[in-house]
Formats: sequence, C-alpha cells, structure tokens
Amino acid sequence: MFTTPKPSDSLPDRSIYERRESIVRSYARSMPRQFNRAEGVWMHDDQGGRYLDFLSGCSTLNYGHNHPILKQALLDYIAADGIAHGLDLHTDAKQAFLDTFEQVILKPRDLDYRVMFTGPTGTNAVEAAIKLARKVTGREMVIAFTNGFHGMTLGALACTGNATKRGGAGVPLSHVSHEPYDGYYGPDVDTADLLEQRLADPSSGLDAPAAILVETVQGEGGLNAASPEWLRRIAEIAKAHGALLIVDDIQAGCGRTGNFFSFEDMGFTPDIVTMAKSLSGMGLPFALTLLKPEHDQWLPGEHNGTFRGNNHAFVTATAALRHFWSTDGFAADVRRRSDLLGSRLQRIADTYGFGMRGRGMMRGINVESGDLASAVTSACFDDGLIIETSGAHDEVIKVLAPLVIDDAVLSAGLDILETRIRDAMGADHAANQAIAAE
Amino acid sequence: MFTTPKPSDSLPDRSIYERRESIVRSYARSMPRQFNRAEGVWMHDDQGGRYLDFLSGCSTLNYGHNHPILKQALLDYIAADGIAHGLDLHTDAKQAFLDTFEQVILKPRDLDYRVMFTGPTGTNAVEAAIKLARKVTGREMVIAFTNGFHGMTLGALACTGNATKRGGAGVPLSHVSHEPYDGYYGPDVDTADLLEQRLADPSSGLDAPAAILVETVQGEGGLNAASPEWLRRIAEIAKAHGALLIVDDIQAGCGRTGNFFSFEDMGFTPDIVTMAKSLSGMGLPFALTLLKPEHDQWLPGEHNGTFRGNNHAFVTATAALRHFWSTDGFAADVRRRSDLLGSRLQRIADTYGFGMRGRGMMRGINVESGDLASAVTSACFDDGLIIETSGAHDEVIKVLAPLVIDDAVLSAGLDILETRIRDAMGADHAANQAIAAE
Amino acid sequence: MFTTPKPSDSLPDRSIYERRESIVRSYARSMPRQFNRAEGVWMHDDQGGRYLDFLSGCSTLNYGHNHPILKQALLDYIAADGIAHGLDLHTDAKQAFLDTFEQVILKPRDLDYRVMFTGPTGTNAVEAAIKLARKVTGREMVIAFTNGFHGMTLGALACTGNATKRGGAGVPLSHVSHEPYDGYYGPDVDTADLLEQRLADPSSGLDAPAAILVETVQGEGGLNAASPEWLRRIAEIAKAHGALLIVDDIQAGCGRTGNFFSFEDMGFTPDIVTMAKSLSGMGLPFALTLLKPEHDQWLPGEHNGTFRGNNHAFVTATAALRHFWSTDGFAADVRRRSDLLGSRLQRIADTYGFGMRGRGMMRGINVESGDLASAVTSACFDDGLIIETSGAHDEVIKVLAPLVIDDAVLSAGLDILETRIRDAMGADHAANQAIAAE
Amino acid sequence: MFTTPKPSDSLPDRSIYERRESIVRSYARSMPRQFNRAEGVWMHDDQGGRYLDFLSGCSTLNYGHNHPILKQALLDYIAADGIAHGLDLHTDAKQAFLDTFEQVILKPRDLDYRVMFTGPTGTNAVEAAIKLARKVTGREMVIAFTNGFHGMTLGALACTGNATKRGGAGVPLSHVSHEPYDGYYGPDVDTADLLEQRLADPSSGLDAPAAILVETVQGEGGLNAASPEWLRRIAEIAKAHGALLIVDDIQAGCGRTGNFFSFEDMGFTPDIVTMAKSLSGMGLPFALTLLKPEHDQWLPGEHNGTFRGNNHAFVTATAALRHFWSTDGFAADVRRRSDLLGSRLQRIADTYGFGMRGRGMMRGINVESGDLASAVTSACFDDGLIIETSGAHDEVIKVLAPLVIDDAVLSAGLDILETRIRDAMGADHAANQAIAAE
Repeated sequence: MFTTPKPSDSLPDRSIYERRESIVRSYARSMPRQFNRAEGVWMHDDQGGRYLDFLSGCSTLNYGHNHPILKQALLDYIAADGIAHGLDLHTDAKQAFLDTFEQVILKPRDLDYRVMFTGPTGTNAVEAAIKLARKVTGREMVIAFTNGFHGMTLGALACTGNATKRGGAGVPLSHVSHEPYDGYYGPDVDTADLLEQRLADPSSGLDAPAAILVETVQGEGGLNAASPEWLRRIAEIAKAHGALLIVDDIQAGCGRTGNFFSFEDMGFTPDIVTMAKSLSGMGLPFALTLLKPEHDQWLPGEHNGTFRGNNHAFVTATAALRHFWSTDGFAADVRRRSDLLGSRLQRIADTYGFGMRGRGMMRGINVESGDLASAVTSACFDDGLIIETSGAHDEVIKVLAPLVIDDAVLSAGLDILETRIRDAMGADHAANQAIAAE
Repeated sequence: MFTTPKPSDSLPDRSIYERRESIVRSYARSMPRQFNRAEGVWMHDDQGGRYLDFLSGCSTLNYGHNHPILKQALLDYIAADGIAHGLDLHTDAKQAFLDTFEQVILKPRDLDYRVMFTGPTGTNAVEAAIKLARKVTGREMVIAFTNGFHGMTLGALACTGNATKRGGAGVPLSHVSHEPYDGYYGPDVDTADLLEQRLADPSSGLDAPAAILVETVQGEGGLNAASPEWLRRIAEIAKAHGALLIVDDIQAGCGRTGNFFSFEDMGFTPDIVTMAKSLSGMGLPFALTLLKPEHDQWLPGEHNGTFRGNNHAFVTATAALRHFWSTDGFAADVRRRSDLLGSRLQRIADTYGFGMRGRGMMRGINVESGDLASAVTSACFDDGLIIETSGAHDEVIKVLAPLVIDDAVLSAGLDILETRIRDAMGADHAANQAIAAE
Repeated sequence: MFTTPKPSDSLPDRSIYERRESIVRSYARSMPRQFNRAEGVWMHDDQGGRYLDFLSGCSTLNYGHNHPILKQALLDYIAADGIAHGLDLHTDAKQAFLDTFEQVILKPRDLDYRVMFTGPTGTNAVEAAIKLARKVTGREMVIAFTNGFHGMTLGALACTGNATKRGGAGVPLSHVSHEPYDGYYGPDVDTADLLEQRLADPSSGLDAPAAILVETVQGEGGLNAASPEWLRRIAEIAKAHGALLIVDDIQAGCGRTGNFFSFEDMGFTPDIVTMAKSLSGMGLPFALTLLKPEHDQWLPGEHNGTFRGNNHAFVTATAALRHFWSTDGFAADVRRRSDLLGSRLQRIADTYGFGMRGRGMMRGINVESGDLASAVTSACFDDGLIIETSGAHDEVIKVLAPLVIDDAVLSAGLDILETRIRDAMGADHAANQAIAAE
Repeated sequence: MFTTPKPSDSLPDRSIYERRESIVRSYARSMPRQFNRAEGVWMHDDQGGRYLDFLSGCSTLNYGHNHPILKQALLDYIAADGIAHGLDLHTDAKQAFLDTFEQVILKPRDLDYRVMFTGPTGTNAVEAAIKLARKVTGREMVIAFTNGFHGMTLGALACTGNATKRGGAGVPLSHVSHEPYDGYYGPDVDTADLLEQRLADPSSGLDAPAAILVETVQGEGGLNAASPEWLRRIAEIAKAHGALLIVDDIQAGCGRTGNFFSFEDMGFTPDIVTMAKSLSGMGLPFALTLLKPEHDQWLPGEHNGTFRGNNHAFVTATAALRHFWSTDGFAADVRRRSDLLGSRLQRIADTYGFGMRGRGMMRGINVESGDLASAVTSACFDDGLIIETSGAHDEVIKVLAPLVIDDAVLSAGLDILETRIRDAMGADHAANQAIAAE
C-alpha cells in the first residue's frame, strides 16, 4: 500500500531549490521529496514513492487530488477554449457557479448571501471582509481571537495571533484586539463573559468593534473547537454591540466538519463568511466572501484585483458542488467517518493521557510537546504518511485526511500514526505505567 | 471580423448576478455580455458575438487567450494527474519552472535573484516585498509614488494612490509616503531632486525609508512612463539612503514593454521585483517576488499561504518562457510592433492636440476627460473592441493588446478607435479647427 | 462653618464664559460659582460663599490651598527676582529641588532614580515614560489596564481606557493593549494569571510589550485599588517578559495613600515612575519622570519642551518636601486619618449595601449609579462641600480631601455626605428595609 | 555691562546633576552655569556672572524676565491667597484674563475666537488643535511642513519634522504628511502649487486632510519665514479642500513678529490658533487653543487635564495684555526695533555672503554650518551673551532678544555677535576675499 523509497545517491539534481527558491519555503523541509503525480488520497514522488495524504493541502483537497469528475470537467472546459481569465467579466462558468451555489448551498440552508469574488486567496477574502465591516459600521477596530489564523497580508495578519507570522510584518499591526477564544483560560472561565464585560464597559479601553472575526475550529491554532453555545454568545455580543460577525470558514468549511459550512445548525447566521481552500474542489486558487445584501455597500471596484474569480476554479467548484452537495449523502458519510476518526483518535489519546482536539474530520491529538509531535510526524512520513502539526507550539498532531477517504485507508493511516506515537512514547510511557501500577 | 449582436429580449436569464454577485463588480458593467470562449486575441459571447481584446486582462494575457502550446501543456499535465495543489512542496512542475526561469530569464540577463512563491496575486507579491524590505532594513516607512497602483490588501493598498481604493480600507493607511512620480509637476521640475532633498534633510519629516516602490510605467495610474534617467536616479537615491528598490513589474513585466522585465537596459538592478499577471501566460493566478540572495532573510514560513505556487501555472509559465523567451525573436517582434502602435497612436493624438502616454505595447491617449474617454471606449465596444481607460480621472484610453496580435488585426482595432474618437470629437473639433484657422 | 449664598440676580456679568470659553470646560458646570480665594481646605467665592474642598484639584492640593510655608517661599523667591523661566538651565531652585528630593525622598527609601523634568503636565510625564520604555526595549506595544487614566495627548490617551476621552482622538489609538485590572472580572479571576498566560503564549496575538503601565489606585477609573500581591505579580511578569514597569503615581503619589509613593513597602520597585499633581505642593504645573540610571538612554533634547522644569514649582516643591517629608510625622498622621476616613465611609457604605473603594486618603463609595452619585454630590455642593465622582459611569463618590485636613473638619464634611446620601436613598431605602424586615 | 567670571575650582558641588538629572537635559550643556536671578534682559549666575539673554526662553520671555508690573501683580495675587489651582473652575483671575483678551486682543482685530484652556504646554495646545480638526472634519490626516516644530507628545510629534525628535517616539508616527514649506525647493518652485496639485488629484495618495498646520515663521526649523502670499494660498487651499487651517503661533506669537499674532494683516484668518510661550508674559506655563465658535464641538471634558488654566499665569498674562497691548505703542516700538535688528543682521550676513532669516524680532543668520554656528554661539557665551542656534543642522544663529530690550543693549549684544562671527570666519574669510579680489 505505501511505498517509500529512501533518497538515493542517484537522485536527480535538486540544487535549483537551494539556488533559486527563497528560504521562506516550509513544508518542503519536512517532506523532502519531489512529487509528480497525485490522485485521490495518494501522492507520488519521482522515485516511485507513494504517500497517503493526511494533510490535504491544509484542507484544500477535501475531495482528494484530481477527483475524476472535477478533472474531466476542467479538461473539457480547457479543450473547448473556455475563458481562463476574464477579470470580473460575466462568463458561462461564473454563472454556472453562482446558479449552483444558490441552488445547492444557499437555498437549502435558507441563507441569503451575496458572493464577492475576491482575489483567489484566503487572506484576500479576509481583507475584503474586514474592509467591508469597517465601511458598514464606520468603526476601525476588529476583534479577533487568540490562536486565530487569517492570513499574511497586512490587514489579515493583524488578525492573526502567531508571533512569528506577526513579526514578519515589520510594522506594528494595528486596529485589532485579540480576545481569548473559547476555553482559552480553561473550563472554568467563560471567555464570552469576559468579552461582553469589556465591551459593555465604557472605560475598558476596548474600542467599539467593527467586526468580530472568528473560526469555529482553529485549524492552524491547535484545532481548538468552539462550542455552539460560545459561538452563539459571540454572535449575540456582536449584534448587541453593533459589530458584524465574520466567520472565517476557509479551513473548516466545505464539508470538513460534516456540513458545508462549519456553523450550520448552531443557531446563528454570520454577517460575513470567508471561504477559500477546498472551494474549487481541486486545489485551484479560489476564494470568496459571502455577505448579506444589506451590507453590500461597496462602490464598483472598491476592492478589486486581477484574478478575482478564476474561471477554471468556477468549473471545478461547480462540478464539486453538484457532485457532493446536491444530496445529503456525502455529508452524512463525512459525519459517519468523523465519528470513526474521533473514536479512534480518542482511544489513542486516552492511552497516553493526551487530549483530542477538533471536530468532524478536523481533529488531532495534543501531545503537549512540539518536539514529540515533530518526531511522530517525521516517523510517519518515513512510513509513507503525510501528516503535519498545528498549534502555538506545533504540539498538536493534526489529521486532515481527504473527506472522501475509504474507511480502510483511513484506518491504515491511523495505524501508522498509532504505532509511531507508541514508538515515540515507548520507554517513558512503559516506565510511567509501571510506576502507576505499583 | 467583428460580430456584435445586440442583446435581445430572448436572452437567457441573467438575474443571478443582481441577486447573488456583490455590487463591487466593475468590468462587467461596461461590458455587459456573457463570454464563453476565447482564443488568441478574440473573446466570444454566448449570443455569437466576437470581440477583439485590447484589454488583455489588464496585461494578464500578453500571449493571448488559451495559447495552443500553453493549453496543450496544461491539458497533458492534468490528464496525467500532475499535482494540482501541493502547498509549497517540491514538484516536477515547480522544478521545471525554476530551471527554466533561471536558464531563460535570469542567466542571459546576468541577474541573481531568488524566487519567492507568494500567494498567487499581485497584491500578495507586493505585501511580501515590503515586508522583506522592512525586515532587512529594520525601518518601517515605504516610499511609493503618486498614481501608483500596487494592490488591495492593506499593506499594498497603503502604497496605492487612488483615493477610492484607499477609502475602502476603513482605517488610515500608514507607514507609506507618496512622492511625486517622474513628470508629476511638469517637465520643469525633476521630482527625483525633490525626493533627494527631502531624504537628505534630517528635518523634512520624511522618515528614513525601508524601500522605494516604483512602477516603470504606471498601468492603472494613467500610463505614465518614467524615463530611464529618473529611474536610475531613484535607484541611486534608494541605495544612498539605505532603502531597497522594489520594482513592481506586475503589469509592465513579461514583455509588455518590449523586454521580459520593464527595467532592462536602464543601468540599474532592483533589489526586489514583483511579478504576476502574465507570468502564467494563460491567465492563471500566479505571482512571485524576486529578491537578491543577500536579502533572503526570511524565517521558514514567515510569509506563507495556501496557494503559494500554483502548479497548473508552473506548467503554463514554463511553456511560455520556453516558447517566447528562449530566443530574441519574440521580444524583437514586440518592439517592432510597439513602434507601429506608437506611431499610430501619436498620429491620432496629434490630430486633437492630445498627448500619447506609455511605452512599448502599453500605451494610450490622454483625452483629458473621463467622460470623453468613457464615451469612446463604450462606442468601441459597440463595434466589437474591448478597450478600457486608465488614470486618476479615467481620462486615458489604454491599448493593452495581446503582444502576439497580428499587425493587421492591431490596425483594424486601431481603426475602430480612431473612428470613435473622431466621432466623439466631431462637432466640437471641427468648430475649434475653424476658429483656429480664422 | 459653611457659607453658601445662592446665586442672586445681582450677580456680576458672567457672560464672558459663554462667549469666549470653549464648551469643553467641565468642572465649572457642576460647581457654577466664581472662586476668588482659597486657603487650606477652604475655597471662597466672590459672593461670600465658603466651601470645603473634598476634591483638592483631583489630588493636586494634598497640602491644601496656599499653604503658608510654601506660599512664603514662593513670595520670597519672586520678590528676589528668582529665575521664573530658564528652559532647562541649571538654577539654584533646580539644584535645591534635586538635592532635597535625593535626601528626603530617594535615600531614605533606598531608591536610585534619575529625574527627568518633562513638560509640566502629567500627560507629558507619561509620554516621556512610554517613549523611553519603547526606546530601551526596542518594542512598540504598551500594556495598560481597564479603567486606567493617563492623559489626553495622543501617546498617553492611547493608554487611557475611557471611551469618551479616546473618542476625542479622531484617529485610532494604537500600540497599546488594555488588559483587565486587579479584580476586573470579580474576586474569582486572577487577572495577573490571564495576562501571564497570554504573554507566555506565542500565538495569543499579544505582542511582546515595551512596558506595563499601571496605577496602584485608579483615581479616575473608579478608585479601584490593586492589591500588593497583584502588583508584585505584575512587576514579576514585566521583568520576566522584558518589559519596563511604569507606575503612574500622578494621582496616588505625594502622600495620598499614606506614603510618598503609593507603591512603597509592596516588595517591588518600578522601572519608571511618573509624578505630577501634588508634586509642587501648591498646585503649580510640575511633572517629572523618574527612571533608573541604566535606562537613562536619552539623547540630549530627545524629549524636550519649553516649560520642562518650572522654577516656581521647584521652590514650592522643595519647601513641601522639607516641611512634610523630612520626618515620618506627616505620613503617620495621614495613615491615621486614612483609617478614620475608611471606617466612616465603610459604615456609610454598609448601611446601603454599597462597596467602599480605594485606600489611604483616596477613597469613595460606589453607589452603583451615576445619576445617584451626581444627585448626592450636587446636593453636597449646595451645602458647601466640593466633592466629585469617579468611575466608568461616574458611579463612585470620591473623597479627595487635602491630607492636612483637621479631623473635625473631615468629620463635618463626611456628615454632609452621609446626610445627603441618606436623603437621596431615603424613600427607596426605607421601603427596602421594611420589605427586608418582614 | 557683561560680567562673566570663569568657573573656578572653588565652585559649589554640582554633582547632583550628573547623579540625579536625566541626560536628556540640553541647554544646560552649552551654558554650564548655575543661574539664580534674572530681571529684564539680564540673567545672573551664582558666581557673580551677568548675561545678556538673546534666547528669551525660546521666545517665552518677550517682555523680559520678571517684568516689574507682572511681578507685582503676581505677588499681590499670591499674598491675597488668590486661587493658585482650581482645575477649570471659574475664578476671578480667569474672568479677568478672558475679559482682557476679548477687549485688548480679539475686538480690535475683529477676531471671533473661543478660548480653550489646554494643559499649560505648547504641545498640549497643538494636540487639542489637531484633535478638534479631526473631530470637526471626520478626517484623520493632518498636513504639516518640512522643518515644522510642534511638540514632543505623540500627536504633536507626528507633526514635527526633526528626525531626532521623531526617532524618540519609538513607534511610527502616523496620520500626518509633511509637505514642503515656502521656499523649500528654492525660489523657482512654488510649494503651494505642489500641494494644491496633489490635493486636487484623487490618485496622488495624499488623503483628504483634516487640517493644515503651519508656523508663519519656523522658530526651531531655521527661522524660515513664509511670505504672506504663500500663507494666503495655504489658507485658500485649506478652505477649498475642507481642511481647517491651524496656525501654530506658539513661538512667533505674542508680539515677536511685530504684532500680537504673527498672521495679522495678511488677509486670512486661521480656523485655529495655538499659543503658549510668552502668553503668561513671565515665563509661567500657560497655553491655549483659539477656535472659531462654529468649530467648538467638544463634549465637556473631552480634552481635559489637571493644569488646564494656570491661575498665576492668568494674572501675569492679564497684566501683560493690559500693559503692552492696550495701545499700539509697544507693537510700533517692536516693529521699529525689528528694522534695526534686521538691517544690522543683514549687514553682518552680507559681509560673508550669508543669508539672513526670519522677520520681526525673530531673525538669524544662516552660517551654513552647524559647527561654525556652534563655535560662534559658544564664543558669544564666553562674552556674556546667551544665544542659540536653529535649523535642521543647527546652522542658523538665532537672535531672540526680549522685545523690551533697549536699542543700546541690543546693539551691544549684536556687537559681540559680529565680533565673534568675524573671529570665527577670520583666516578663511580673509583668504577668500584676497582670492576674490585677484
């Protein structure tokens, strides 16, 4: 099933990367292979290696690599000289996407959003969202949360918690206040209460917010999953204080948590939703910002960009929506598989007194040490499993398998993970168990 | 040659756009058609209309729509299940791009740059560039220029001159000072002198800059083309004052001015170059930031993003570099055609006492009135010519034809433009001529 | 004892204020008299009224109005043509102040501070303090606290919590984060823990601070008094995270809490202390910033100002230090009187289930309603007692009597306060008592 | 006339300054004496030295030191227990000041301003002014000028040009753009034209300003005097673009240029005027912001401060207004003396090919070298003349004598200056003259 030939002396010359690619590169460091082909849950390297993908482009490949239906739709479109690039002109591909999004996603959920095609990156969708919230409210300050991750451009970066990323700005990041996320101060402190108190207090120093920007599960920040109750409170607080509620569903959306949107069935409706990653279904750059019609107060072109709307992505996104979301089958299957994943991870975590994090198909194990997590994921990679970490200290081993993964393959991947955790914990844990048993 | 059926009552239902697309859309307003196919210099709408493209996706389609060589390379790649998305992992497609970029672009020009794959939008490349300049210099202020356009995310937007775009921020845009571009105060004032005086004066209030960010031709700002002398002065000033020189070559690069980079043969080398738009050759989202090895001081992942590197774009970009830039033929042809365009536009401009703007295949006529320019481009569109305006008041009619256009087709397009300007000027101009002749 | 003639029809013309004084004026609204003379604890108006001063210029007149010793020193100095203004030149008056401050204040407390003579306002001392902390640490963010008050100029205002004051800025106030003060979330939440957790978390979004700026008692923010334990924790946190600890002792210093500095005997030493208000002893504008020699990294004149150092204030401040602080008698007397004040206020507060706030001679009663507090202080004023409110909602009635007040006069003033609270609570409270008794 | 004993070995111990005064001190470095008495134009040190004051506290002592009439008024006030400090309560002293200011200053000049008593420093008056302009206009950006000096607190510092002062902030200074002052680019460039062009251009990157903040003569920035024509243009530009015109008259006001306000008779009326320095007449801390009634949109207490209004300063300021400004005699005398000063300085300047700067009694010689200027002023001090430099490179020797100086004493001081310039230029200049004569 897994083939992982070790790098040999006869490898092709790879010096071009040292010579010509900026050292800012990151994933290529922990997965030092050259990949050349991928389908479904598998990636192949140019030495004949085959890897199971538990990373999925950080949730960009929820439907796997090169899904045959999406792939065929794209091949047909290109072959027919479909518009590849047309700025924001109307195209058949755009109309098909909008029609499908309305029919398959919005109507069944009784959601009334307009779609803003931003530049095709998540950070651009976030920038558009906070711009709009500031414009609509006439306020400047945005509330984001500890461990939140929203992008690398200056507006989105100000909303991001990570100190290394923030440090890259080279200027102070302003007009944002980071408040504690659900559970940040432990189970006894309701951080929604804290936020509410400060916003209600005219002397707290916390300015009236234009928006509250929140992820329902913090994909980069350690797979912290907020409770529906807390999220509902945050939605109420936003409303009470005249702020727009922005749900950044870039990583948690598109089915990752078991529904198309991660906030479905929670009893609140965000004012703005940002989407990207798995939206195109095939990994193509594509992002959008959903907004309520009453907030659609943009001037024409007030936020623009060359690649807003990517017609190839319209095509694959439309195919994905039709194939996976026209009926409830796929979502139900994801939820069933989520339970499988959850119970399996919980069992592993319990063995070592670790905590499981996340929800749906967006889960991980907090092994409480970045070094340990890194040792485990590195060992997994040696076994042909692509898996990464998350969290402030990279202490959470994160399972982001494609949602379409077979149960058996999922199990095989989790077997590797379980083994490698056992190996890493081995000596110490056996010793501890022995002591505990005395 | 041109077929432009008027919208009829039997048009398909287009209400989806009103209902579901944000009013922020812009180009679709002045070109209210639904396009469904394009090849070379032609776009087709779903009513059988055929349009000559003098906009080229704002210089994103320098090689035309769906160039057959690029298209075939992409079809082959997708059909073979080539990696579509792999975060920033090494792939065959990435290596091929880097190898080709080194061999075809860097080496012949004796340029030693590293390539940073940013998020696939120009604004992201600019954000990365100014971050890096701030990091390398430890300074915060960036000098940009009047009428400069660099993107819509908060860091790049602060560098953009346009008041409407800036107003969209909803927060004050800081850490940037806009200085007058070449010729801004007319031919008698050397704005490089002004800048130098202020930077040399410790009491001018202009803080020491991290970077000077400049376009050699201002694509959105009115097709102002800086002189080589002025640009060289700016490069010297940057060096003398410890600032990095960033050339934003997003619109003017990739052959638009007759060379791959717009600053070739000018006697200076930028510290950083930002590229996007025509880089993929087929209109796919792709951007990069070129930087000198000594400035490659990033931490791994310090500026990251889901779609940094777009493998489909690697494939088409590589094909484009090989096809168009392996020999001098294409560039020479572009330069020859630029002269054609230039002399023709100059003649039209002279007829009415207007000024020609720009250089290379990036030129226009300043008709000194946004209303006039809009009337002309709108009339051109009725004749099947897609053409847009530029400038602070949209007063410059901008010709951005694909570089691969046949001379005859170029002439046919310019015929339409000339006719429509004559029509618009008609009565008034005849009257003026008569008065002048008395 | 108190004489408070009501305004009569024969009052002198006061229309000049309406005509020529900006409506920004505040205290003159709640105390609409024209004062012309004051000595000790008494103020006199021009209609023969006499008022007991429980406001003391917001703790600027700790030694009362026109203390005879200070007054005589100033008269002698002026009569002898002592330097009134000399920029920051050395003068006999400055040397005498520095000598005395060293001998009487620093040495006995084993404190090694240098004195920076800032512009003669508290806000200027705060601006100097945060500038220095930013310079010394190379960081930009300052931590201030909920309900903190530090001044009205832009740097100090960013540290101030009050929304109305902040709103006056007209620009976003940046580079400061407001954290919850001691007790802000009630007795069960240790806010020092919260702060420590966020600073230790590299993904919290809270940037590394240049300084932590704290008042030991929040004079404007509702007379919240931090516990010594909490302040010690804050000092430890500052040290652990490389931030300078700034104690803003502008209102709480100069004996108000029973010692010269409000943080004495608490087991920590601030890196920087700001002082103003009662420093001159006679109400003259005077402020200074105390800093540790190792942090004295200013360039000459890097923070300057016309009135830095006010020689008249040097004279009165020197006289005050010698008279009140050369022995322990005054401080002991203040502490004794503080107990008297405390037990009396506690008794009043208990009667109505209110809470007492503050410590030393800086106490008040939280009547939990701004309207009620205002009604009480207004009624007190009718009885000849000058008294004001504090807090986010002006809900704390604040007693800031001169420290030199006679016990009998203090009691007489408190009698008025007690009576007026009883009157205001009257009907309601009687009713409530009756219900409670059933 | 001048007595300047050199420091001897038997000097009193001055080590307190090294030990206890921050190294931020500045003037005390170039004038290392201890002063103990001053009257009129003379300062005395504690070793019997007597110095002629050509600095006047940077124009804070326009009426000289301890003017007998002002001094007596203050002595009487203090002796009678006049209110020294009363926050912003109404007092006899305040009313007298307002009445006098209205009668003596505003009415004769037909000016309709309201008076805002800010904290008693120039920087506070500037902070209040720009806050108000931002509030009234709803805009954030303020235009200030090259070489402008407006204060050290963060809002005013952002408006200040000097790089060393700006560097002290430790944070980027935002929301201000520095534009070239009159003559900044030499006589051939009208900088008002440049400003107008950029403000009229929606793509210049210069945001719409809340205010234009200007000094009519730049006291710290090199005694640059703007022409009435330029100032009128600036006033027109402000009006045309919806910005408030703020004249910072802190150094140039109170008679320094020959009228009470420096902008009188120029054909425009500022919207806001800031005043401080010589306002009290005796060097006491006092500042105010004048504003038009229609802009008096403050909330009560929105900008407040402990020492707003300084009653001692009200007393001396009132006496000064009455004595010096009730008739035209003083102003006429100042103008006459200004001509004397001007012709004398021009002659000295001409001798060496230097330029004279400034106007009224606010003039200097640009010796084009900070080292030379410093050598001259230092030599003057040895002769008993207190004189300082100004300008970006401290290259302007600045004469700021008290306005009340006798002609003979003024001449005596200028004799010293002339001699010391001749000494410093001596050898070089003789050589140059010889060469020129060949």
